[in-house]
Amino acid sequence: MKSSVRIVEVGPRDGLQNEKATIATADKIELIDRLSGTGLRSIEATSFVSPKWVPQLADAAEVFTGIHRAPGVRYPVLVPNEQGYERARAVGVDEIAVFTAASEAFNRRNINASIDESLQRFAPVMERARADGVAVRGYVSTVLGCPYQGEVPLSDVVRVARALHDMGCYEVSLGDTIGVGTPGKARAMLLAVASEVPVNALAVHFHDTYGQALANVLACLEEGAAVVDAAVSGTGGCPYAKGASGNVATEDVVYMLHGLGIETGIDLARLADTGRWLASKLGRETGSKVGKALATT
Amino acid sequence: MKSSVRIVEVGPRDGLQNEKATIATADKIELIDRLSGTGLRSIEATSFVSPKWVPQLADAAEVFTGIHRAPGVRYPVLVPNEQGYERARAVGVDEIAVFTAASEAFNRRNINASIDESLQRFAPVMERARADGVAVRGYVSTVLGCPYQGEVPLSDVVRVARALHDMGCYEVSLGDTIGVGTPGKARAMLLAVASEVPVNALAVHFHDTYGQALANVLACLEEGAAVVDAAVSGTGGCPYAKGASGNVATEDVVYMLHGLGIETGIDLARLADTGRWLASKLGRETGSKVGKALATT
Repeated sequence: MKSSVRIVEVGPRDGLQNEKATIATADKIELIDRLSGTGLRSIEATSFVSPKWVPQLADAAEVFTGIHRAPGVRYPVLVPNEQGYERARAVGVDEIAVFTAASEAFNRRNINASIDESLQRFAPVMERARADGVAVRGYVSTVLGCPYQGEVPLSDVVRVARALHDMGCYEVSLGDTIGVGTPGKARAMLLAVASEVPVNALAVHFHDTYGQALANVLACLEEGAAVVDAAVSGTGGCPYAKGASGNVATEDVVYMLHGLGIETGIDLARLADTGRWLASKLGRETGSKVGKALATT
Repeated sequence: MKSSVRIVEVGPRDGLQNEKATIATADKIELIDRLSGTGLRSIEATSFVSPKWVPQLADAAEVFTGIHRAPGVRYPVLVPNEQGYERARAVGVDEIAVFTAASEAFNRRNINASIDESLQRFAPVMERARADGVAVRGYVSTVLGCPYQGEVPLSDVVRVARALHDMGCYEVSLGDTIGVGTPGKARAMLLAVASEVPVNALAVHFHDTYGQALANVLACLEEGAAVVDAAVSGTGGCPYAKGASGNVATEDVVYMLHGLGIETGIDLARLADTGRWLASKLGRETGSKVGKALATT
C-alpha cells in the first residue's frame, strides 16, 4: 500500500446534488472553507451542469466566487460541455471534471449518446482546457454495475478510462455509482484499468449503497490505489435506490487510512466536526460512523 | 480465502442485549426461528447471565424452550458461571459460550477479576460441559482496544485465546468490542493468534462503531478466517459510545461474501426481510445497508 493517499472530497458536489434538503449558498461556501481547513487538498466545489438537471447546484457561480481559495488546494468543478466550461471559466475556475459512464445503457438513458459519442462531446472542452492551462479530471461511472444493463464488461471500463486519460485527464476516477460492487470485483476492476492507465493516475470512487464501500477501498489500496474520492458525512444517497446510503464518508476513509499508517494530511477531529455541522444543516444525523462515534466519546 | 464461511448469528444475544427497546419473548422466538429459516447454521440464542446485568434477556429460559430447534442448527447460549450453566442445562441447552477479555483493565472493571482469575472461574463450567458432552465456544473481547486501558498488547490476546482453546473451546471468537480496529491491526491480530491456535478454530467478531467492521472482516478473510460473527440488522450499539453503531450487520457480511464467491448457505433476501422485520419491532430503521437497499429496489 502507498504510504500516503490523497482524498478528493466530493461532498459539496456529488454529495449535495443528491440531497433533498436545499442548502443555502452561504452554507455551501462555509462547508468548502471548513473542508479546506481540515487539510484536504482536493475539494470538488460544485457543478456547472445545467440547473435544470441539478437544481441544488444552480448557485455554482456564487459558490465558487464566494469561497476562500486556500493556497495549495485544488477546487475542481463538474463541467458537462462547452457552455458549462465557459460559465466555470468566467468565475476563475482552473480545474474541471468531465464525466461519462462505462455502461452503454447508462449513457444512452442519461445523455442520449453512446460511450463513444459522449467522449467525442468532450473533445472541444478538452482542447480549450489544454489551451487555457486548465487541469481536467475524468469520471467513469457504473464501473461495477449499471441500473439499466446490470453487468458492465471490464473491457468497457478499461476502454473508457484509457480514452479519458489519452484525451488529457490527469486523473481518472472509477465510480461504482450504484454501490453494488464487492472487494474482489473492485480489485479486479482496478487491476484491469491499471494495466492500461498508470495506477497513480487513477482514483477510486465508491458509494455505500450496500455497505461495501470501505471494504472496496481497502481492496483497491492493496493494489496500489493512491487517490480516494469520498464525501464528508456520507452525503449523497442514490437516485436508483430510494433512501439508500450515499458516498463513502470521508471521515470513515480517513480513520481507516490513519489506522493503516497511511498519511492523508487531514485533521480527523476537525473533519468529523465539519461532517456533523453539515448534517445539522441537512436536518439529519451524520452518515459517518466515525462522526457519530467521535461525537459521543 | 476460504471457499465457504460460516456465519455465527449473534443478533438475538449480543445484538438485543444492547438495544434499549424491550422485545417481547414471542418476538425473540420468532426472530430465532426466522433466522434458522434463512439457512444460518449457528444462532446464539440468548444469555444466562444474571438478569440483573442483562435485563433484556431475563426471559432466556422461555426463549430457549420456545424456539423450534431446526435440525443441523447450533444454538449456543452465553453462560457466565456454574449457576448460569445449570439454568441453561435445565432447558436443554447443548452448546454454551463463555467469555473473557484480553484487557486486564476491562476484566477488573467488569468482573472484578484478573484475566487469569476469570479463566480459572470457567474451569468448573468447562469440566461439567466436557462431562455432559456440551460444546463450548469462547469469546475474547477487547482484542483491538479497551475503553479503559486503550491499547491491548497482542501477546495478551494470543495468551487468552490460546488458554480458551486449551481449556476445550472448539472455537474462539476474537471481538473488537468497541469497534476501534482498522484492517491492518485486525489482520496482525488474527495472524498472531493463528500462530498458536488453528485458524479454523477462530472466529472474528467486529463492531461497526467507526464503520470499519466489514473492511476488518475482509482483511481477516484474506488471512484465512473461516467463521464470522454478525448480527442481523446491525443491532447492538456500544455501551461505551452512546448512539454508536452495533455489530456488523449479517446482511452486509453475506452480501460481501457472496460477491467474493464465498458460500454461506444463506438466503440473503430472506435474511434482509428478517432484519427489516426486527428493526420494525425495535421501532427503528434497519442498521443494515443491504437491508435498506434491497427494500427499495
